[in-house]
Amino acid sequence: MSVAESFAAFRERITTHTERVLDQLLPPADAFPARLHDAMRYSVLGGGKRIRPLLTYAAGTALGVHESLLDHPAAALELIHAYSLVHDDLPAMDNDDLRRGRPTTHKAYDEATAILVGDALLTESFAVLASARGLAPRQQLRMVATLARAAGSHGMVGGQALDLAAVGHQLLQPALEQMHLLKTGMLLRCAVQLALAAADLAEDSRAGQALIHYGDRIGLAFQVQDDILDEIGDLQQTGKARQGADRERQKPGFVSLLGLQQAQEYAASLLQGALDALADWGPEANHLRALARLIVERKQ
Amino acid sequence: MSVAESFAAFRERITTHTERVLDQLLPPADAFPARLHDAMRYSVLGGGKRIRPLLTYAAGTALGVHESLLDHPAAALELIHAYSLVHDDLPAMDNDDLRRGRPTTHKAYDEATAILVGDALLTESFAVLASARGLAPRQQLRMVATLARAAGSHGMVGGQALDLAAVGHQLLQPALEQMHLLKTGMLLRCAVQLALAAADLAEDSRAGQALIHYGDRIGLAFQVQDDILDEIGDLQQTGKARQGADRERQKPGFVSLLGLQQAQEYAASLLQGALDALADWGPEANHLRALARLIVERKQ
Repeated sequence: MSVAESFAAFRERITTHTERVLDQLLPPADAFPARLHDAMRYSVLGGGKRIRPLLTYAAGTALGVHESLLDHPAAALELIHAYSLVHDDLPAMDNDDLRRGRPTTHKAYDEATAILVGDALLTESFAVLASARGLAPRQQLRMVATLARAAGSHGMVGGQALDLAAVGHQLLQPALEQMHLLKTGMLLRCAVQLALAAADLAEDSRAGQALIHYGDRIGLAFQVQDDILDEIGDLQQTGKARQGADRERQKPGFVSLLGLQQAQEYAASLLQGALDALADWGPEANHLRALARLIVERKQ
Repeated sequence: MSVAESFAAFRERITTHTERVLDQLLPPADAFPARLHDAMRYSVLGGGKRIRPLLTYAAGTALGVHESLLDHPAAALELIHAYSLVHDDLPAMDNDDLRRGRPTTHKAYDEATAILVGDALLTESFAVLASARGLAPRQQLRMVATLARAAGSHGMVGGQALDLAAVGHQLLQPALEQMHLLKTGMLLRCAVQLALAAADLAEDSRAGQALIHYGDRIGLAFQVQDDILDEIGDLQQTGKARQGADRERQKPGFVSLLGLQQAQEYAASLLQGALDALADWGPEANHLRALARLIVERKQ
């Protein structure tokens, strides 16, 4: 790990590394019961932007944490993210047939298997935190508490419930932001929080406050950009079944609330807020800065 | 806590206490998002035999552990059990309309809410372990690892996958026992393992081995008795929609494999095995002995 490494090289290296760590942590595809384990691997491996692990490693770089201490926390986060996609895609939820250009888990296998895959990945995520090496039990336990809070009914799952309840309603901006803070923001914040726990640094320390503020800005920017891409994104790049899918489904979003141009301006101002939070930091935070730009400027 | 307390009094007291602990640990029904939290409480509170908490407290009594150290572990186990019922009842799984004589969660609310309730309860379970008091972080982390293993793809979720795959097939006894060991046995073993962790006693200690052997015997006995009750149980007492439901669904079971009489004999021999595992123990294990009898002699 070197702060002189370009962000492109860092991103490529961490994406590949995360895939390898996940591959090693997940049970083999032929482990009993094989169909379940095969479906778990299908749902996690071979794709994804790995934004959350990138965020954890980039925050770890800024804090001078040895990368190996971040392997299990970053993998745990990605398992939570993967489980949430599998459950979100279910017929009773978003009813999506495609994800990253491939059949969703319930299409590739069946609905019952997809429910169980999500349950197993969620459970495995905590097993992965508990089996992390090089950290004090106290730090691991802090990670368990942080991840559970971010992923639970006051976090991601709560946001998903709000999202479903909002279908057919246009939310005002505070309610829309609250929904996204829970649905995606808490887990992105958690990516930073896990790096702080690995550094054994309090969240209310100066560095902790700056990084969490940064994480919250890019969390919201991520969602605004998602809504923009849903509206104008290239279908092949986003891997979604069709453009404007959220709009068709009458899901409230920043584009329908603000209009396209204002949504783009809002994303840019959130990016600036994230960069401002790092104003006191030197080159050790360059990957965090580049990641913030990537999130707002991505095409998929 | 006193070993002189009758099992009936112990059972009554622990059942009430568990309800109160769960009530306090679950978010209030009006906490935002309210519908989700209301459904979580509906799915956990107001019923259930609380066998797993009873097992944890009875094992704790045998080991001389202060009961307050068991509150969070026992509640975490019960949250896992409750989530598994909510997901098992879903249309894509067992498609059950009634549970304990009340509408199942997806019937009382809706399918998407039931999926999210299960996810939230599963996540909350680890938050509850992480927030336990009076234990060393090392002990709590051991509990996280143990519960995750018991509940995951090599445990409960794996058993559920095998159960679904077995519909329409009669399994031979080893495969049937393997399925039940994963589906229900691992979590019952876990109830004992959590008490061992609270006592800071190794699983391969003499006491640890005895208690785990006991737990495995009653885990299997529990399932054999479940199959017997499905066949002959009183519908009002079991709270199920209809007698022989598993048989109708062509779910393989001990009664269809062994016949009713042999299944009853098998349950009795498992009970004896559980009691034999406690042969070296004195009155401190009386609640464990009575619980084993309750499991095999219960009518619901």
